[in-house]
Amino acid sequence: MSKPTIGVIGMAVMGKNLALNIESQGYSVAIFNRTSSKTEKVVADHPEKNLVPSYTITDFVQSLEKPRRIILMVKAGQPTDAVIDQLLPLLDQGDVLIDGGNTFFEDTIKRNARLDKSGVNFIGMGVSGGELGALQGPSLMPGGQKEAYELVAPILQKIAAKASDQTPCVAYIGPNGAGHYVKMVHNGIEYGDMELIAESYNLLRQLGHLQPQQLADIFAHWNQGELSSYLIEITADILTRKDDQGTDQPIVDMILDTAGNKGTGKWSSQSALELGVSQSLITEAVYARYISTFKAERQKASTILAGTQLTPVTLPADFTEKIRQALYFSKIMSYAQGFAQLKAASNHYDWNLQYAQIAQIWRAGCIIRAQFLEKITSAYQNNPQLDNLLLDDYFKDICAKYQDSAREVVSWAVKSGLAVPALSAALAYYDSYRTEVLPANLIQAQRDYFGAHTYQRVDQEGIFHYPWYQEQ
Amino acid sequence: MSKPTIGVIGMAVMGKNLALNIESQGYSVAIFNRTSSKTEKVVADHPEKNLVPSYTITDFVQSLEKPRRIILMVKAGQPTDAVIDQLLPLLDQGDVLIDGGNTFFEDTIKRNARLDKSGVNFIGMGVSGGELGALQGPSLMPGGQKEAYELVAPILQKIAAKASDQTPCVAYIGPNGAGHYVKMVHNGIEYGDMELIAESYNLLRQLGHLQPQQLADIFAHWNQGELSSYLIEITADILTRKDDQGTDQPIVDMILDTAGNKGTGKWSSQSALELGVSQSLITEAVYARYISTFKAERQKASTILAGTQLTPVTLPADFTEKIRQALYFSKIMSYAQGFAQLKAASNHYDWNLQYAQIAQIWRAGCIIRAQFLEKITSAYQNNPQLDNLLLDDYFKDICAKYQDSAREVVSWAVKSGLAVPALSAALAYYDSYRTEVLPANLIQAQRDYFGAHTYQRVDQEGIFHYPWYQEQ
Repeated sequence: MSKPTIGVIGMAVMGKNLALNIESQGYSVAIFNRTSSKTEKVVADHPEKNLVPSYTITDFVQSLEKPRRIILMVKAGQPTDAVIDQLLPLLDQGDVLIDGGNTFFEDTIKRNARLDKSGVNFIGMGVSGGELGALQGPSLMPGGQKEAYELVAPILQKIAAKASDQTPCVAYIGPNGAGHYVKMVHNGIEYGDMELIAESYNLLRQLGHLQPQQLADIFAHWNQGELSSYLIEITADILTRKDDQGTDQPIVDMILDTAGNKGTGKWSSQSALELGVSQSLITEAVYARYISTFKAERQKASTILAGTQLTPVTLPADFTEKIRQALYFSKIMSYAQGFAQLKAASNHYDWNLQYAQIAQIWRAGCIIRAQFLEKITSAYQNNPQLDNLLLDDYFKDICAKYQDSAREVVSWAVKSGLAVPALSAALAYYDSYRTEVLPANLIQAQRDYFGAHTYQRVDQEGIFHYPWYQEQ
Repeated sequence: MSKPTIGVIGMAVMGKNLALNIESQGYSVAIFNRTSSKTEKVVADHPEKNLVPSYTITDFVQSLEKPRRIILMVKAGQPTDAVIDQLLPLLDQGDVLIDGGNTFFEDTIKRNARLDKSGVNFIGMGVSGGELGALQGPSLMPGGQKEAYELVAPILQKIAAKASDQTPCVAYIGPNGAGHYVKMVHNGIEYGDMELIAESYNLLRQLGHLQPQQLADIFAHWNQGELSSYLIEITADILTRKDDQGTDQPIVDMILDTAGNKGTGKWSSQSALELGVSQSLITEAVYARYISTFKAERQKASTILAGTQLTPVTLPADFTEKIRQALYFSKIMSYAQGFAQLKAASNHYDWNLQYAQIAQIWRAGCIIRAQFLEKITSAYQNNPQLDNLLLDDYFKDICAKYQDSAREVVSWAVKSGLAVPALSAALAYYDSYRTEVLPANLIQAQRDYFGAHTYQRVDQEGIFHYPWYQEQ
């Protein structure tokens, strides 16, 4: 009997589903879990599958074909290090260890360097698509040694989601932490998309006085056009659903308005801050989730803080279409920021990221999958060195066309007392980025005044300091 | 001859000025600098001063009265560790080392713990006020061992700025990194204040077609009222100044619109993200500075990306007053976020921060000094456990009164194509915080749909998961 081609460590739902996915492509898969009962259960639940269980990590490693290919699907952080420490003495030069967890990219950079000293290849791989994606075809973002990627590429290409043109949603992302970085920004973008949908839903509901079933129809309709995407699709579905706990209300109205998070949106914003690029929309989406968790404070504040006394806004007949345009416009800003961040990261970490390919592998399998990613792919195929997505012909034309809807929608919201942090951030980004002269000259004057931080001039090169403390 | 009471290491401008300030209060001050020539120059420039120079670190330490009191004014980061490594073997139990640099608070926490093992007290002290403040009276934010603070309190109280009621602008902030943390948030707030002023200036100029001298008059007038503060005052002054390089233009128009930063605003935002609290206004201010640095890209984008086609807004006669109200309203949001962040940090790091006292010591000496800080002091004196500044009577009333101006001003800006990221973030925060039911229920539904992240309900306790994948 031939040895298993690949092994998976960690039989929680993501690891189990990934193992089953690989097996379904005709591979024999070694499996291991710290707690043996989990491994036993997977084997018992899937007796017909070509899964080779081991109950010690040594047996697991010895069971594998060489060079060994091992996917870790364990908790990010310390648990990942613990497994690596156990594995390392058992591995040989040229083996490939793949971390498929939601790992912080800086940890991946460190682990890649550490294992590289022993000649063991370490790939940090972003896996998007949730439990179902892991089983049926995720979007995969592997980063690490290129030659190690080649050793697993045939398997990854088979298990990955397929875009409508049948291209597998996996590609070599870049060295060391590049894969986990791109997955992190993917997740940040996911936060942005979700917040924009939530704000649009809220405006339709509060200003348009539409009920969940009507909103479901609107989102279903939007899903037929430019906004076609998984998140719009499930939003439409969510809004049709009735409570399953006996109230007969739409389920959305029975769900408490506090949104959790797993930290990847936070990391993404912290990295943008570190790299010196704006990720305002995603950051506002993260903050919006934070504010949502202060439910008790908000309830109290709602009885204390006054709302607007302005004349209620009069909506035009086509307000739904204007909100759709504002949503699409704002989504473009979010992706423009996300890709600008990838560019800054690629330069900073020397990753040589391929933006067209990244957009391409997000077209299926992952949570942000959307028709719109074809447009981003084309933009970077046309110009791999594009400074900013907004400067691509398709995107600049859409912005020209839709911006005024965004302006009107934000204006209705602020005049009605409805919070639209992400839609507002989108407009502010567009208007900042397209403005030749920003009032940052005044800020730099202030900095030079109180801190002697110097300034540059509009009419000549050099560094200047103004004698603020001399009387005129 | 008695030994110097205190010593200062680092004779760059901040260290030198702080040493001179201490000396002017009647103390003998030991001074040391890695490069001896700097020390020699300070002594030569100030022959009449009671400064005791040393040219080796051993001599410097031995020159001091015990327990030794040493203020480090060296570059944050590695240079600070290098000096600590040199000093530590020379110090005795009970000595007090004070880091007055712009140090990241987590470094201060680590150093405090490390030195504490040798019985050496380590105080991380935020120093605000720039070069002039260091000389004439800064706002001081010391954190570390309480008993060590008591050993230096008499000196710090003498050299600190005095508020209008003659209270010195220094107070014990809390253990280990608390002082540097509070200074970091102070700086974040400074970024917010500056961005809000810049946006208001830009609106007055672009929408109101006012020229720098007229704007100077407006800011000078604002400085007489609620907005009275150092930053408004210097803004008025800046706007009166003519170029000193021979163009005869207002200097503000000759300054390139790219604003630098030293990283404290970034740290402040990263920490808010870490702690799970919104600091949206300050973060937008940081991002605005980042966008300002992409000058070449913006110049190009300004020729490619279209502006609005909406009917130009008609300003009311009192538009200047509305902008003033919007600015004050937004400033309140920024401080509400800053103090909410301090509260989250105090809980997380177990610092027992005293918010009234913090507001009090920001009243003079520092860059954000303002009349308005009296109101914050009162709010926390009235209720030290206040959940949020906005819930204080004074602030809630101002918000009720000024919010609609903020709404109108943001609406003019977005309809005119002028970027107002911070003013927009302020409104979004107000409207989020005072909203009992946010659309985060939809976000949580999406999370439960694609990631089985579960949800809480509005009508009963517990954790629920909806069977999204069962057909209805």
